[in-house]
Amino acid sequence: MVDVLIVGGGPAGCSAALTCRRRNLSVTMVYSGDGALAKAHRIDNYPGTPRIEGQELLRLMREQAVLEGAVLQKGLVQTILPMGESFSALVQDQVLEAKSVILACGTGRVNFLENEESLLGQGVSYCATCDGMFFKDKEMIVIGSSEEAIEEANYLAELGHVRYLIEKKHDTTGLHPSIELVPGVPQALQKDERGLTVFTKQEEAYKADGIFVFRPTVALTQLLSGLESENGAVKVDTSCATNIPGVFAAGDMIGGTIQLTNAVGEGTTAALSAASYVSKMNKAEK
Amino acid sequence: MVDVLIVGGGPAGCSAALTCRRRNLSVTMVYSGDGALAKAHRIDNYPGTPRIEGQELLRLMREQAVLEGAVLQKGLVQTILPMGESFSALVQDQVLEAKSVILACGTGRVNFLENEESLLGQGVSYCATCDGMFFKDKEMIVIGSSEEAIEEANYLAELGHVRYLIEKKHDTTGLHPSIELVPGVPQALQKDERGLTVFTKQEEAYKADGIFVFRPTVALTQLLSGLESENGAVKVDTSCATNIPGVFAAGDMIGGTIQLTNAVGEGTTAALSAASYVSKMNKAEK
Repeated sequence: MVDVLIVGGGPAGCSAALTCRRRNLSVTMVYSGDGALAKAHRIDNYPGTPRIEGQELLRLMREQAVLEGAVLQKGLVQTILPMGESFSALVQDQVLEAKSVILACGTGRVNFLENEESLLGQGVSYCATCDGMFFKDKEMIVIGSSEEAIEEANYLAELGHVRYLIEKKHDTTGLHPSIELVPGVPQALQKDERGLTVFTKQEEAYKADGIFVFRPTVALTQLLSGLESENGAVKVDTSCATNIPGVFAAGDMIGGTIQLTNAVGEGTTAALSAASYVSKMNKAEK
Repeated sequence: MVDVLIVGGGPAGCSAALTCRRRNLSVTMVYSGDGALAKAHRIDNYPGTPRIEGQELLRLMREQAVLEGAVLQKGLVQTILPMGESFSALVQDQVLEAKSVILACGTGRVNFLENEESLLGQGVSYCATCDGMFFKDKEMIVIGSSEEAIEEANYLAELGHVRYLIEKKHDTTGLHPSIELVPGVPQALQKDERGLTVFTKQEEAYKADGIFVFRPTVALTQLLSGLESENGAVKVDTSCATNIPGVFAAGDMIGGTIQLTNAVGEGTTAALSAASYVSKMNKAEK
């Protein structure tokens, strides 16, 4: 059980990690990709690091978080469950437990396929480890948006027959030879008495027993059920607290000024709020 | 006339300067001292610059502001006058004009002497250049808190007879030989029909025609008349706008979380708000 789980490894997350460590809290920071900062060719207005490449600044910040004792872990947090006194987060096939959570996942937007949300748990899954065994010796379709999907697809190919559809262009050379790469861009899902179907923008249809969708980001509704948001931004008060006690949010995902300096400021605010929350929980336990 | 005058040269001010320059606004940043950051032995939780000395980080930030085209000027902004479409700021004997103002002066608290505020303009002055000539060939007392006061005292000594009282300990070796250094720590001022008196904590009394008080910081009420504050913090909305149109504030002086990361975030917010204000003013002029 760590004191604080930080979801996201950009500037808001790194800033939160540094301030949590200053408060002597144990921190695990889980991130799935590099986000907006890494895409910035050059940053001129972040005080302290003149004319720096985004990718380099991100590297510096993550190194610094590790230097100060935060644990960095690459992976996608699929869902977070409030467990009363703590939180359980599912990261691929691993469960992380934390006393509090800071969300700092950036602005990564998830564009669902038609019917995807309503069919979730009805043959449509985001988690190979959780649901793969249900489709042993069956027909599966994997919809992949990034290289991270390859490993999941290869695991599923050990269980049954897998076809692979590309949602966003990425390198697929790592796919197991038994996996069939099928053409077309997925658009909609459908379920009837004979099973599930993926329809592509090119109007092809592929049938399967199970459909796995792997994207480097997760929709807020899936990440943490009941989390209040407005126009795609997580709602927080001035202390960066969300509507769920023990869950804080910072950076681009809370909207406002989408700037690097604001993100690091909010990261600090969220960290101080989490520190105060954890300290209260620890006292209540005694 | 510059687009933005920034009062204060700490992290909030430097951050504001960098973002103003990104928006191609002309910026003059006036600062009188080094503030809270310079006093920090080591900063561990500012993302991007691991385990850095406060003084060194401040130096980096100021260098960066200059690199991006901001003009840095050492000096004390004594007072700012709203002039309708613009602002005039008095910096020692110089008047700076700006379309908008960002206040980022930190938490420097001014402890007034008894009766100081009520006697201001009645023989008590903060400005040698403005008021020195009123006391030609007369008796003056200078109350100094830092080395910056020495130069002012020496100028006054060219006009009349000056005695010097130390409010906060500092090097006084630069004082003109004609200036009499008198003992005691000033506590209260008083005015009667025979002139002004300074009373010290040691219960000595010194009479004069004029009293000049020179401190490295200026009280908010004196800096900008009518500026709303609460518990010593300047009141701002979420865009860092104060109650005076065209005046924005950021950093420790607006209260909230007194952290470096928050200061730089607020600096950016204030800069973006000032940019939007200046752009509206420029359009209105056409």
